Amino acid sequence: MDSETKKHKWVQWMHRVLQLASLAEGETSPNPLVGAVILDSKQRLVGEGYHSLAGQPHAEIEALSQAGTSSKGGTLLVNLEPCCHQGRTPPCTDAILKSGISRVVIAMNDPDPRVSGKGVAILRNAGLEVISGVLEEEASFINRAFVFRNRTGRPWGILKWAMSFDGRTGLPNGASKWISCSASRRNVHYLRSKCDAVIVGGETVRNDNPLLTSRGIAKKEPLRVVFSSSLQFPTNSQLWDTNQANTLICYGPNSETSLLNDLPDGPEKILLKENTPTKLLEMLAKKGCNQVLWECGSSLATHAIQQDCVQEILLFLSPKILGGVSAMTPLADFGFESMEQVINLKEVSSYKKEGDFVLNMVFDNHL
Amino acid sequence: MDSETKKHKWVQWMHRVLQLASLAEGETSPNPLVGAVILDSKQRLVGEGYHSLAGQPHAEIEALSQAGTSSKGGTLLVNLEPCCHQGRTPPCTDAILKSGISRVVIAMNDPDPRVSGKGVAILRNAGLEVISGVLEEEASFINRAFVFRNRTGRPWGILKWAMSFDGRTGLPNGASKWISCSASRRNVHYLRSKCDAVIVGGETVRNDNPLLTSRGIAKKEPLRVVFSSSLQFPTNSQLWDTNQANTLICYGPNSETSLLNDLPDGPEKILLKENTPTKLLEMLAKKGCNQVLWECGSSLATHAIQQDCVQEILLFLSPKILGGVSAMTPLADFGFESMEQVINLKEVSSYKKEGDFVLNMVFDNHL
Repeated sequence: MDSETKKHKWVQWMHRVLQLASLAEGETSPNPLVGAVILDSKQRLVGEGYHSLAGQPHAEIEALSQAGTSSKGGTLLVNLEPCCHQGRTPPCTDAILKSGISRVVIAMNDPDPRVSGKGVAILRNAGLEVISGVLEEEASFINRAFVFRNRTGRPWGILKWAMSFDGRTGLPNGASKWISCSASRRNVHYLRSKCDAVIVGGETVRNDNPLLTSRGIAKKEPLRVVFSSSLQFPTNSQLWDTNQANTLICYGPNSETSLLNDLPDGPEKILLKENTPTKLLEMLAKKGCNQVLWECGSSLATHAIQQDCVQEILLFLSPKILGGVSAMTPLADFGFESMEQVINLKEVSSYKKEGDFVLNMVFDNHL
Repeated sequence: MDSETKKHKWVQWMHRVLQLASLAEGETSPNPLVGAVILDSKQRLVGEGYHSLAGQPHAEIEALSQAGTSSKGGTLLVNLEPCCHQGRTPPCTDAILKSGISRVVIAMNDPDPRVSGKGVAILRNAGLEVISGVLEEEASFINRAFVFRNRTGRPWGILKWAMSFDGRTGLPNGASKWISCSASRRNVHYLRSKCDAVIVGGETVRNDNPLLTSRGIAKKEPLRVVFSSSLQFPTNSQLWDTNQANTLICYGPNSETSLLNDLPDGPEKILLKENTPTKLLEMLAKKGCNQVLWECGSSLATHAIQQDCVQEILLFLSPKILGGVSAMTPLADFGFESMEQVINLKEVSSYKKEGDFVLNMVFDNHL
């Protein structure tokens, strides 16, 4: 049997593995989404599991524990190479060897340098058959945030905006409630629940007084990040009440920090080395964020794109006409001078929510 | 049998009638799109026809001629009330009575005041069974341009634009070739072939030197209309060569008409009573236009919308990011101050063409 035929045989089960992995979307950071399936020696399903939360057992352990002695001589399918290092939980390779599993089918190698390739080597050296690369593209896609953070040291950035048919994000006087329909706004709550942090600039805090939570959809609300150089905030923003969700105020070296004294104690304050989206995201990666949502105004959004801090765009296009030469637009200047220089996007998905068109894109240089 | 059950019986055949009618889309102005089907007394199909061009036989006559003597005791299905007046061709009601047809099934009454209801009355008075309102909504939709012109004295206006994901119709330096993909641009050629006239302002002539034809898709190229107050044109525009398509230059009372002396003789020149989109469209309606396409810049487009000279929008949304605070946008100011005042659109259709999203909308106050 050639290698492609060998892989093809496992595609259906790997789909189930990816399904299991996705059950914990938004809950596992800084860890990846992982699902696992165990078939016994006669290829009957005997165990399933997924990684539900950092610190909780890995998917392989969940599935092995369900399978018990039936895993002997069986097959383990898992979307990410099993870990071989002691983290908050013991190495999965140890448990796999101990279980008597004789074949391991993997979608993709772990980009984490502590594992990458070593997990597979340990299993092969112990005499297990290891088949790699089954649904690799799909597996990379569901873990694109984790993969990207491992590669760059920054979380995967999603930028969303709601816009009218004539490209406006607000009226000339700033009114923008609401451009998108209520279903789209609910969609944003859901999106927040899949992210580890939501980022706004000072202007959004001053103008919109946003709450920035998932409205209870998330098991744990995303961290609300305010990124500001002026630190000029109203004293009574909804973000200062940290009972519903944590808030982080981030600023650069030249900010007037005495202004922070006027704010309530709830939010954490962090001084960045530089007042840039890159430094902000590096700090958030260190805090365990795999994926962040930019919900900022046009100037910060443009800055974030320029620093490669946005990889994905979610556009809510509403069938309305707002007009206004001086009306708000989603992005500011990039300095492009010809159509060859502009940024090209690639579709992930597109669908309708009530009246709105929801268009999900990635930057063409990613994925 | 109640009236709804009676109508329901004819729905399938009326779909075929609408299909026949649509075969001549863009070719019949100032006349409507009309199709006809004849069933014999045993309800077998014996004749079909459609109106192909103003001055050519009406759909009923085409179908009756195909059916011959088989129409005796039969049923005529037609999407528009048969005419009862002598136009460029004789009244259809005469031909129907003469054919021995015993039942006429109609989708909608003719909005033309010379017919409206009178055609039906003549048939009923002669003892024929007349069933009205079968697929009335669908029939009104395919003839929305004709209906609108009869109601308002102005052609149905379609405004199209190509826009990036961040709402731009060009870069700050004016570069815009090409925002949309080649399939979308081909789509515009097709759209032009369905319109009686294509309208641009002087600025588009000066900046883009457009050709504005259907590139041969139309049997007869749409009239190319230049609407300008300044009359400052380059002497060598593609529009001045009227071998491929006719060109009309329209201007208001205060224009410096001596500037027209520098232009070649090809284009027709028309002085409007007022320099407004309304007067322009009233003139075009009198010239037999049912449907026009606005391909102008943001300021004329905004003016046209404000004067209710746009009923339908076709947006080509391209997955690109252009940026640019001073970049071109599709529309200018309407003076809206709250989201309650903005214009709401209603979807007609949406689909993808290669990378672009093609979104077809009508203004919520129409249809």
